[in-house]
Parts: sequence; C-alpha cells; structure tokens
Amino acid sequence: MSEHTEDPQLAEFRASIDNIDAALVHLLAERFKITKAVGRYKANSDLPPSDPGREEQQISRLRDLADDSGLDPAFTEKFIRFVVAEVIQHHQRIAEGDSF
Amino acid sequence: MSEHTEDPQLAEFRASIDNIDAALVHLLAERFKITKAVGRYKANSDLPPSDPGREEQQISRLRDLADDSGLDPAFTEKFIRFVVAEVIQHHQRIAEGDSF
Repeated sequence: MSEHTEDPQLAEFRASIDNIDAALVHLLAERFKITKAVGRYKANSDLPPSDPGREEQQISRLRDLADDSGLDPAFTEKFIRFVVAEVIQHHQRIAEGDSF
Repeated sequence: MSEHTEDPQLAEFRASIDNIDAALVHLLAERFKITKAVGRYKANSDLPPSDPGREEQQISRLRDLADDSGLDPAFTEKFIRFVVAEVIQHHQRIAEGDSF
C-alpha cells in the first residue's frame, strides 16, 4: 500500500488519475483491436507493415491537438512513436503468420 | 501524404484510429493537469516526488484492467511506466521551483 493514502487531497487527485488511466487502457485496447485488423488486412493485401508517411501525418496532427489541449507536443510525439512501435511489432508478427 | 490513403478499407480503419488518438491526447492532457497539481501539492507539503508503493499499485490494477479488456498487460505496464517517468520529471522540475 502507498505511504500517503491517508492524505485526503492526494487521495482525491489519485482517484481522478485512476479513472483517467482506466479510460486510457480501454481506449488503447480498442486502438490495438483496430491496428490488429489493419495488420491482417495489410498482410492479406501484401502491403508493408509500416508506412512512414502515415506516421509523420499522425505525429503532426497529434502535436497540433496537444498544443490546443495543453499537452507537451514533444511528449505527445514520444507517446505516439511508443504506440506505433508496438503496432509495427504486431504487424510483423501477423505478417509472419502469428495469429496471437 | 500517405501512399495508401486511396484504399477505402484502410482509410476507414485509420479514421477510427485518428479518433481514438485524439481522445488519448485529450485524456493525457487532463491527466498531466492533475499530476502537475499533485506535483505542486507534494512540493508545498514536502512530500517526495515519487512514491514506488503507489506506482506498483497502479501497475497491478492496470494490468488487471488490461487483461479484462484484451490489452497486453506487458505493454500496459510499459505504457504506465512511460507516463509515470514523465510525471516524475515534471514533479522534480516543480520541486526545483520551475513553474512551467
């Protein structure tokens, strides 16, 4: 258990963080469902697993959205590259015939 | 521009991914607003920036949520550690008097 859970202000902040994290996990679950479908589609259509032009478009758009919403664009870029790296691993596994 | 935007099935997948990414960015913006408030609160209360007990609780809970929602728990742990590392950097900057 955490050493600071008795502090009511900190507990309130943490309850909000936990709610947001649950939403993030569920959205990421949906995102990977779609990207796995994309991976299968690309493998069946003989399209390459990665598409650098698409990634640069995504990064540029999300940096703008981050700016508008008060999130650090540099962090946002690191975040989307982190997610896309995982997606490319999935696509490579799908292309190699791993159904996982 | 992406080389594959003319494929209607791929374009439909990508529109859903873009919607989810916009939601992720906005949720992350809210999450960092709260963690910056936590950072200020900890600095004013002389609490340490990081709390390993809290982090382990978060990871364990999010791995369970990931399991329930079909997301890879190992990826989920990497994701939350990635976000928490950014938060700790913010808290250290706040503790050092950087208002950013």
